[in-house]
Amino acid sequence: MTQEFPSIALLTDFGLQDTYVGVMKGVMLDICPEARLIDLTHAIRPQDVRQAALALLDSYRYLPRRTVFLVVVDPGVGSTRRAIAVDAGPYWFVGPDNGVLSYALREIGEWEAFELTNDRYWLPDSSNTFHGRDIFAPVAAHIAYGSSVKPFSLGELGTPIDDPVLLPPPLLVTTAVQIVGEIIDIDHYGTLVTSIGRLAHEAGGRLSLAPRFDHEASLQRFDIRKIRIRAGGYSIRGIRRAFSDVESGQLVALVGSRGYLEIAVNRGNAAKRLGLSMGDQVELEVWED
Amino acid sequence: MTQEFPSIALLTDFGLQDTYVGVMKGVMLDICPEARLIDLTHAIRPQDVRQAALALLDSYRYLPRRTVFLVVVDPGVGSTRRAIAVDAGPYWFVGPDNGVLSYALREIGEWEAFELTNDRYWLPDSSNTFHGRDIFAPVAAHIAYGSSVKPFSLGELGTPIDDPVLLPPPLLVTTAVQIVGEIIDIDHYGTLVTSIGRLAHEAGGRLSLAPRFDHEASLQRFDIRKIRIRAGGYSIRGIRRAFSDVESGQLVALVGSRGYLEIAVNRGNAAKRLGLSMGDQVELEVWED
Amino acid sequence: MTQEFPSIALLTDFGLQDTYVGVMKGVMLDICPEARLIDLTHAIRPQDVRQAALALLDSYRYLPRRTVFLVVVDPGVGSTRRAIAVDAGPYWFVGPDNGVLSYALREIGEWEAFELTNDRYWLPDSSNTFHGRDIFAPVAAHIAYGSSVKPFSLGELGTPIDDPVLLPPPLLVTTAVQIVGEIIDIDHYGTLVTSIGRLAHEAGGRLSLAPRFDHEASLQRFDIRKIRIRAGGYSIRGIRRAFSDVESGQLVALVGSRGYLEIAVNRGNAAKRLGLSMGDQVELEVWED
Repeated sequence: MTQEFPSIALLTDFGLQDTYVGVMKGVMLDICPEARLIDLTHAIRPQDVRQAALALLDSYRYLPRRTVFLVVVDPGVGSTRRAIAVDAGPYWFVGPDNGVLSYALREIGEWEAFELTNDRYWLPDSSNTFHGRDIFAPVAAHIAYGSSVKPFSLGELGTPIDDPVLLPPPLLVTTAVQIVGEIIDIDHYGTLVTSIGRLAHEAGGRLSLAPRFDHEASLQRFDIRKIRIRAGGYSIRGIRRAFSDVESGQLVALVGSRGYLEIAVNRGNAAKRLGLSMGDQVELEVWED
Repeated sequence: MTQEFPSIALLTDFGLQDTYVGVMKGVMLDICPEARLIDLTHAIRPQDVRQAALALLDSYRYLPRRTVFLVVVDPGVGSTRRAIAVDAGPYWFVGPDNGVLSYALREIGEWEAFELTNDRYWLPDSSNTFHGRDIFAPVAAHIAYGSSVKPFSLGELGTPIDDPVLLPPPLLVTTAVQIVGEIIDIDHYGTLVTSIGRLAHEAGGRLSLAPRFDHEASLQRFDIRKIRIRAGGYSIRGIRRAFSDVESGQLVALVGSRGYLEIAVNRGNAAKRLGLSMGDQVELEVWED
Repeated sequence: MTQEFPSIALLTDFGLQDTYVGVMKGVMLDICPEARLIDLTHAIRPQDVRQAALALLDSYRYLPRRTVFLVVVDPGVGSTRRAIAVDAGPYWFVGPDNGVLSYALREIGEWEAFELTNDRYWLPDSSNTFHGRDIFAPVAAHIAYGSSVKPFSLGELGTPIDDPVLLPPPLLVTTAVQIVGEIIDIDHYGTLVTSIGRLAHEAGGRLSLAPRFDHEASLQRFDIRKIRIRAGGYSIRGIRRAFSDVESGQLVALVGSRGYLEIAVNRGNAAKRLGLSMGDQVELEVWED
């Protein structure tokens, strides 16, 4: 079936107010009518490359193999920043070379990147302000179409490069008794997602920390009952398993679905309650009796 | 064609800000690449189970037969609330057992429900915070895939149950001269949807009332010209057929597309004008000459 | 492939808060299960027929040939306004006869329009408040289905008409030294889209103006370095090629992806900065040394 239904996943900061996303979809379906288009989100904060890079990192593995990821958060559109396509094992990625793909590529490990220079695969008369429509969407659709019909080499799209832009990782500093991270996302429910991860529950009421980036982790295993979370003047004791482990309206710290430490209010909005913003610092401390 | 294109309809309170919906779609297309995914809405107010139950009740019949409904408004995720799948004639329903399916099931009348206990149909290592991704989406996709290839019994998914949670119906009290209801929804245009329904225009300028729930209806037929609607200190005479039956900017009461009494402002926003909220009371009175 | 995957593009002011769009999709997939549904946008400002007409004008050509456009911005629903379907060469259009299709039809030039009078192609018991669901969506799906199976004549849908409602064009007045236009859209990024277009960069640092409507254009070619843009008490010199041609946070005038003069703030929000709204006037002047 995969052969017949190549998938293209879209991740942008375009919003849904304008026809930008719809027009990109029209362009892609004109080139590859069989494509399945999957919206990851179009609500990345305008020009927030790191938020998009993290959203991609935490999502890509849930998409079918052979998905093409069209990632357009592109504050430098029309400048000298490169446009790239990347062959990364079971996935392809297309987007601006500003680091937005770099977290996912770092995790995948092996990949080949190409600068998009062959305008045969673009719309004619490309604009300087909407490469999503004129370059990235048609290239993604050509990859999807090519991959469903015959082996397709990304080398047709342009020149190999080995130095794509890498984003610095989010803040994560560990000592023997403390982990310091930052708020990397605030979701629809107002839940605060921190950079403290990936965390996993282990037997005996312990949590393990396995940082996704190159951070050194002094504190790798700890007892969830002896933990205190500090953020914005608030303090939360212990890490629970579910929102509903506390009463309605209470603060709760838990390992969220992305594997990071999250701070939530059961049936409420933690961001509003705590008055915290993207980038604010969060501390996890081993609590001394 | 239905065999080849099984449909899955999504109804959640996830919003479109995060990648939650996109990730669920990826999970489903990985299991059932032929599935057509139809977004009913993802803008149910966070954790408002009743709003979702009413939206499902008023929508499901417009979807193709053999659609699987994936309904995730799930404030109790990770608690002891059950997860269920329901075979209801031409439709299937999957979601938490918190009443969100109960209005639609009550209307359909005949159904078989199963508690989801067989984790073979879930993602491995299910989280406690995102059953939409880890349990409900894969189960919905397995039903869609199964149904398109061979007869599929929901009994494979878990244990039969006969006591799914039922939500109490919205307020609707009728006497010989009055109907008292409540505001059950406020739409994108600011139109107020009330629980007074289902109403239908009949010959001779009369309206019929046929309550959807178990309400007794003393007042079943009435003259639309002898009606007064009261809400939030405002009074509206008569029930019109269309928004444009009154001047631009004027209040109008009419039978909306869901069959309920609605209060609108022609080319304006009734919720803002009247200052009313979900749950506020609305009265329909027979008006004495 | 087009035969197998007829496309229907949706453009409405319904928002995504309610199930209105999802229900229309269900209705269409029930009639034409093979249809590909493409959301252009559902965030047209409520009842803003002209904004929708311009969005359609600037989008339709990016959709695959043989796409059916379902355009529902319909303040007159339930009144005597006609419902129409239009055969326009490689595209079909369905919507209310209030001018919302008129800009696209004017550009296409040749078309045949029909008033929808044959209720055999509608849902039974059509409402007076939601023709999107009851009339326009089923008609669009019947056209898509018909077109993919056998030649289909729109004459089956109703009566030919030759006088569809035309919207007046946006403001655009040119003299030998000045162009006066208006703000016709404000996008997700706060970029101001003006009626001054279509503009195209030419050799030698010159811009050409080729109005889309019946405007006379005295000023057809000019030097981009000798231009001053005035809007809301602000003045911008020159027209750049890309947002990033100015420093972050600076105002920039450029030719946007729709071909119109746009005013933006690089990595910022021009609408907020300038305090301008839809319909506000913008002047482009040849700047005297």
